[in-house]
Amino acid sequence: MIVRRNLKWSIIARNSWRQVLFFLGMGLVAAWVGRALGRELIPPSAVSALSAALAIFLAFRNSSAYDRWWEARKLWGALVNASRSFSRQVLSLLGALDSDPAAQAEAVSRLQQRLVYRQIAFAHALRLMLRQQQDAYSRELSPLLAPDELERVATSTNAPLLILQLQAEDVRQAARTGGLDVYRQLRLDETLSIFSDIQGGCERIKNTPLPRQYDYFPRLFLYLYSVLLPFSLVPHLGLATPLLSVPVSFVFLVLESIGRLNEAPFENRIQDVPLTALCRTIERNLRDLLQERELPPPAEPVDGFLW
Amino acid sequence: MIVRRNLKWSIIARNSWRQVLFFLGMGLVAAWVGRALGRELIPPSAVSALSAALAIFLAFRNSSAYDRWWEARKLWGALVNASRSFSRQVLSLLGALDSDPAAQAEAVSRLQQRLVYRQIAFAHALRLMLRQQQDAYSRELSPLLAPDELERVATSTNAPLLILQLQAEDVRQAARTGGLDVYRQLRLDETLSIFSDIQGGCERIKNTPLPRQYDYFPRLFLYLYSVLLPFSLVPHLGLATPLLSVPVSFVFLVLESIGRLNEAPFENRIQDVPLTALCRTIERNLRDLLQERELPPPAEPVDGFLW
Amino acid sequence: MIVRRNLKWSIIARNSWRQVLFFLGMGLVAAWVGRALGRELIPPSAVSALSAALAIFLAFRNSSAYDRWWEARKLWGALVNASRSFSRQVLSLLGALDSDPAAQAEAVSRLQQRLVYRQIAFAHALRLMLRQQQDAYSRELSPLLAPDELERVATSTNAPLLILQLQAEDVRQAARTGGLDVYRQLRLDETLSIFSDIQGGCERIKNTPLPRQYDYFPRLFLYLYSVLLPFSLVPHLGLATPLLSVPVSFVFLVLESIGRLNEAPFENRIQDVPLTALCRTIERNLRDLLQERELPPPAEPVDGFLW
Amino acid sequence: MIVRRNLKWSIIARNSWRQVLFFLGMGLVAAWVGRALGRELIPPSAVSALSAALAIFLAFRNSSAYDRWWEARKLWGALVNASRSFSRQVLSLLGALDSDPAAQAEAVSRLQQRLVYRQIAFAHALRLMLRQQQDAYSRELSPLLAPDELERVATSTNAPLLILQLQAEDVRQAARTGGLDVYRQLRLDETLSIFSDIQGGCERIKNTPLPRQYDYFPRLFLYLYSVLLPFSLVPHLGLATPLLSVPVSFVFLVLESIGRLNEAPFENRIQDVPLTALCRTIERNLRDLLQERELPPPAEPVDGFLW
Amino acid sequence: MIVRRNLKWSIIARNSWRQVLFFLGMGLVAAWVGRALGRELIPPSAVSALSAALAIFLAFRNSSAYDRWWEARKLWGALVNASRSFSRQVLSLLGALDSDPAAQAEAVSRLQQRLVYRQIAFAHALRLMLRQQQDAYSRELSPLLAPDELERVATSTNAPLLILQLQAEDVRQAARTGGLDVYRQLRLDETLSIFSDIQGGCERIKNTPLPRQYDYFPRLFLYLYSVLLPFSLVPHLGLATPLLSVPVSFVFLVLESIGRLNEAPFENRIQDVPLTALCRTIERNLRDLLQERELPPPAEPVDGFLW
Repeated sequence: MIVRRNLKWSIIARNSWRQVLFFLGMGLVAAWVGRALGRELIPPSAVSALSAALAIFLAFRNSSAYDRWWEARKLWGALVNASRSFSRQVLSLLGALDSDPAAQAEAVSRLQQRLVYRQIAFAHALRLMLRQQQDAYSRELSPLLAPDELERVATSTNAPLLILQLQAEDVRQAARTGGLDVYRQLRLDETLSIFSDIQGGCERIKNTPLPRQYDYFPRLFLYLYSVLLPFSLVPHLGLATPLLSVPVSFVFLVLESIGRLNEAPFENRIQDVPLTALCRTIERNLRDLLQERELPPPAEPVDGFLW
Repeated sequence: MIVRRNLKWSIIARNSWRQVLFFLGMGLVAAWVGRALGRELIPPSAVSALSAALAIFLAFRNSSAYDRWWEARKLWGALVNASRSFSRQVLSLLGALDSDPAAQAEAVSRLQQRLVYRQIAFAHALRLMLRQQQDAYSRELSPLLAPDELERVATSTNAPLLILQLQAEDVRQAARTGGLDVYRQLRLDETLSIFSDIQGGCERIKNTPLPRQYDYFPRLFLYLYSVLLPFSLVPHLGLATPLLSVPVSFVFLVLESIGRLNEAPFENRIQDVPLTALCRTIERNLRDLLQERELPPPAEPVDGFLW
Repeated sequence: MIVRRNLKWSIIARNSWRQVLFFLGMGLVAAWVGRALGRELIPPSAVSALSAALAIFLAFRNSSAYDRWWEARKLWGALVNASRSFSRQVLSLLGALDSDPAAQAEAVSRLQQRLVYRQIAFAHALRLMLRQQQDAYSRELSPLLAPDELERVATSTNAPLLILQLQAEDVRQAARTGGLDVYRQLRLDETLSIFSDIQGGCERIKNTPLPRQYDYFPRLFLYLYSVLLPFSLVPHLGLATPLLSVPVSFVFLVLESIGRLNEAPFENRIQDVPLTALCRTIERNLRDLLQERELPPPAEPVDGFLW
Repeated sequence: MIVRRNLKWSIIARNSWRQVLFFLGMGLVAAWVGRALGRELIPPSAVSALSAALAIFLAFRNSSAYDRWWEARKLWGALVNASRSFSRQVLSLLGALDSDPAAQAEAVSRLQQRLVYRQIAFAHALRLMLRQQQDAYSRELSPLLAPDELERVATSTNAPLLILQLQAEDVRQAARTGGLDVYRQLRLDETLSIFSDIQGGCERIKNTPLPRQYDYFPRLFLYLYSVLLPFSLVPHLGLATPLLSVPVSFVFLVLESIGRLNEAPFENRIQDVPLTALCRTIERNLRDLLQERELPPPAEPVDGFLW
Repeated sequence: MIVRRNLKWSIIARNSWRQVLFFLGMGLVAAWVGRALGRELIPPSAVSALSAALAIFLAFRNSSAYDRWWEARKLWGALVNASRSFSRQVLSLLGALDSDPAAQAEAVSRLQQRLVYRQIAFAHALRLMLRQQQDAYSRELSPLLAPDELERVATSTNAPLLILQLQAEDVRQAARTGGLDVYRQLRLDETLSIFSDIQGGCERIKNTPLPRQYDYFPRLFLYLYSVLLPFSLVPHLGLATPLLSVPVSFVFLVLESIGRLNEAPFENRIQDVPLTALCRTIERNLRDLLQERELPPPAEPVDGFLW
């Protein structure tokens, strides 16, 4: 996520210099052709009809892309919320046993820690899967999972799904051995279903881009527009045509690019939803609820970008 | 679903050559008439009023069509999520019996497998029904259902509905014979209601197109526009009119077509929501949860299209 | 609901010939006045400011009207889903009694059939109430309700509400006599609340039109526009003015009319949500779940319209 | 709520004569100045840039205002639905006691009536609070509440909140004395939470207007536009300028006013959501469920307005 | 929140005098250059293409910013609702014990007061955290929390989260000591999850601004537009150019600024959602439910602003 208020022109230039050169070239061609012919080439009304159609496309695209981005952010916000609620439930529901000898109390406390840690691991695993960094599972999850579980998770086809299954099995074991009644088990199961919905929602955004038609044609029409625009300006501006046609085309290019880049929020790019920072928040909050004292620091932006 | 970044022009041409020829014809007629009369025919302001009205229509149409497509995708995403949750519940709730002799344990495990397989069958059956491939029921569902159930499903009026009913009957049987208490039974029933809502939502999108008025009039006005446009351009462009009128009309045609094609996401076309791939995901995930080792491979795009 | 792809021009003409005549008249007046005065009358920029304001209004109107229509469709879709879920619950929850002698089993089965039939009656009654065909209650509901209930329903102030109350009383009776525990009773009560929400939602759409301001002023401004438009065209087109002013005004008229007609989806008109067909679907599905063999055929479009 | 199809011009005139006079004055000033200077004053393109910006503002404003109005209507629709569901629950859940001597049965029936009447009082109290008619509490609620409760309600800081609390206390009392098990108590508590959400939603709309910026600047820009518009028309129209500038300005004024008036749906004005009529519906439905025979008649529009 | 109907020009001037001076300067430069060159500089059609693109951006921005503001308001409205429901539950569910000697009754009442006060503290703590006034925790929360809890809260990394945890622990303690059955405990846990969701939603809005691209480019394009606009006006207006270019640029500046300022609703500025007033409402309502007589007065606007 971009945090800095003013974008870096080096980044903008790197993303758009090819197109700007193209716009400049077309402007010069139009200026030269216009001078050679010495009369109006394209009536402004035709160009503005085109710009209206392009505007519809780009407005639609921008708002859909932003909706995707914001839905991704909401899903991860829901993950923060539900992780906190799950931990609160683990701490306040699991412990509510009628008769606890000390040994049992310790078993409960171990189970609570295991469930909360595994929930932290779920967030990390979901992040790594979405960003296609599956090779980092064993490194990043090793402090949070038991070795045998880590082994299974690192080689599974869908790590977060397996972690949820492990949670359910642990809960089931607690229900079996009498530490948890059926009502509390089902309450925890409801929260696990929320995690399942969050994971599926993220996978949906990751795997289903905006229909390609909405990507291809705006690009195509942007080029068409940037070719026609200078020809409509040349009778007024002559050789100065590129001075106006390049900035106006650039404005439409920016509109097109922003939509395209925001559309995919899980690509490990600067436009991403800040998954790493959100995982850190979850880790800090949940370990705080376990009353640990040594928490990792909150994530800070690096060079104006929060990852 | 179209996965390739650049659309194939062969497909675009196949969909639009008739209209493009019509645009070309009108452009030539206008050029000829304009030359014959030698004066302005249609003031640009009238054409731009028309293009504004057309733009309203097309913008509305596009966003409604995309909303339908995306809702269809969300419903199938919810099916993925709920299938996973259902399987987790089947595995963790059904097994939580107080006293299990080995024989009972095996019965539970058989019941679990049957319920999970039938859930996979539900996804396939919903896909086949939506794509009107009812004759494939017996072939595609045979590895997943018992023969007598397959028979009933293949001849029923609404296969997914019947499969949900079979699930409910199995759950009820388990509740009757003491393997499942009422709380867990009701929790499973909640998940079955989610499947019912998903199925109904898909049927709604399938059976209720966008009101036809929003389909017919944009087409009509598009033709009206493409007839008037060249006449407004001809005083500026003369014989070159079609060079501009055809691309501008084509832009509006694309806007109209995208909306029309995205509107129906369950038609076994390249614009479809990728039901086959999503069914594969469900099958892989659920059989993975059953700890099967031999999973079908994930679906891959074919020639840039994911089905 | 209009199913046919191409609208009938006879219907369009019947709905709009008065306005088209008015447009034609204004065009002729403008042509005559313009010829008499021999100079520009109204600058195009003023007309396009008006058309922009009109476009805002009509775009808003169209999308609100469609939202109402689609919400109505969703509510009836939810009715289909919840009717199926209710029947599944009636069949799988009511039957789950621990000790059933044959006599009890038959009583349960009779209760199940009564509840499911009454649920079908709920859908029909809601349709008839929304379409203000209250005099058809006794005819259409007689195969579905007991005679004394039919009597009460036909004379009640709100038939669907009473039917839900009858369902609740039957469920309560079952709970009283021991056939249903409190957990299952409450689960059924949740589904009854869903029906209550669906009914109230339909009544809201039926009884609360779009605020009249959004209906009156677009109509007014449409006429204002259609009066001014030909005067702005006449210097360009002369006596041919109506050839352009009539189609352009007609485009805006269509935009206005579509919104107005879609706004009210329960009026027994061709633009309606197809309540009759949806009731038929519910009836077929629910009687299928009761394993009846003789089902009514699905509803088919008549002359391109599905009712 | 305005029910009549054609608005009264007397009302429109009363709301807008000052502005129309202002528009007329500016038109005359521009006509006089234009004649004196004898040349174009303001280029149309600048005015249309302004009208585009104004259009953005007004479109946003209108749709937000309508969203507020419609949300208010939905909240009151939800109140109708939940009131019906609550009554159904009160009638079908409270009565479901295993062993009822006649005396107990009568106590149950008294409690049911008290709860349903208090629910009607909740709707009336919410309406009176939202319309700031708190002095009518004792008059309008006296047939529905016990005298001591009426006393407390009439003097409380938040009458609907207190009524919900009285409902909860009655339910708790029933749970304490054995007439209601914990499951049914919690089900009723869920419905009470729905009422709490509805009340809070209405208070939110009432107390939080659209941010004032969206009210002040459109008004300001509307005046700016109506000042500049005639100056851009005067070269074309001369002394006839006001004939065009006044209607066009009026169109934008209407757009601005509709948004402003719809924004606040609880002000006891003709644009209100019809709270009185909805309260009447609730009263009729709930007393019908109690099988009372003498119901108040449904609310009818007065002079085209439903209150 | 701004309550006054007419904004203060002193505030508007303070926020925009730099930009207005810039607009004025560009207008004068254009007037001077235009006079020097004596011919059209920039065709209006290019400027209106730019204003269309800018309009898309600003419309999108405004509506997203308002959506954020309104979501923030909804979250705090939901906090009001859920706080009332939580208190109602605490009062009506906790007290419903079967056998209460007087001593137990008093313990229950103390617990009820503690839970309700802590809920008030939750609202205050969330407000202080969102407005980054963490140093006020000990001052503002001291009347509401026990000294040891205040200590923990004031030094925690996330005060509202800790307060929810304290609530859960108290509830768990009540469940352990027999004052609360598992069903009521789980019902309270559901309400605690709602608070968790509300808190997370507010943090999301606070920590995730609108993607910076949507902030930076509109500002950039606004300046580009305000530079080009006077050059397109100067052939018509000559030295009077700034009289028109400054107001038109100002209109776009206002559109840009409103979006930017509404985007962040928790910054302790006049555009904020009125958190202080909402906390006061919660405090008044909840202490009223505890039947306290001395309530703090409702919050009043100060100088036209509600905080």
